[in-house]
Amino acid sequence: MLQKALGDRIRQLRTAQGLSQERFALKIDMDRSYFASVESGRRNISLQNIEKIAQGFNITIAELFTELEDTYDKE
Amino acid sequence: MLQKALGDRIRQLRTAQGLSQERFALKIDMDRSYFASVESGRRNISLQNIEKIAQGFNITIAELFTELEDTYDKE
Repeated sequence: MLQKALGDRIRQLRTAQGLSQERFALKIDMDRSYFASVESGRRNISLQNIEKIAQGFNITIAELFTELEDTYDKE
Repeated sequence: MLQKALGDRIRQLRTAQGLSQERFALKIDMDRSYFASVESGRRNISLQNIEKIAQGFNITIAELFTELEDTYDKE
């Protein structure tokens, strides 16, 4: 499921940077509990929030999805 | 602006396939007027609808955004 795969990808990127959910959410100015639900794959997130998260990792939206879909397609 | 860039990219892909807005919206089971507003860049579209549109073009979400962000970044 795409939402779940995106959440996993975001968690992977965040932990690779050694940031807590709270710290990353603060960095990108997103509500902490909303961000937690995105990571859990429980949100049909909007384009603007996808952009916000990608910018927080200094990557493009395409980069956010590339690895995700490579994994996803193999499932 | 990202919404506008995405709308332009979608319009480009749709017209390249020779499909009307109505026909493409029907193909992906999306409301025609909603789809028109996405193409006009007036919607903060959700992940599920982004996926639906990418699938309608037989491309990945990453592919939908790659060219878009290449252009967008240069602006």
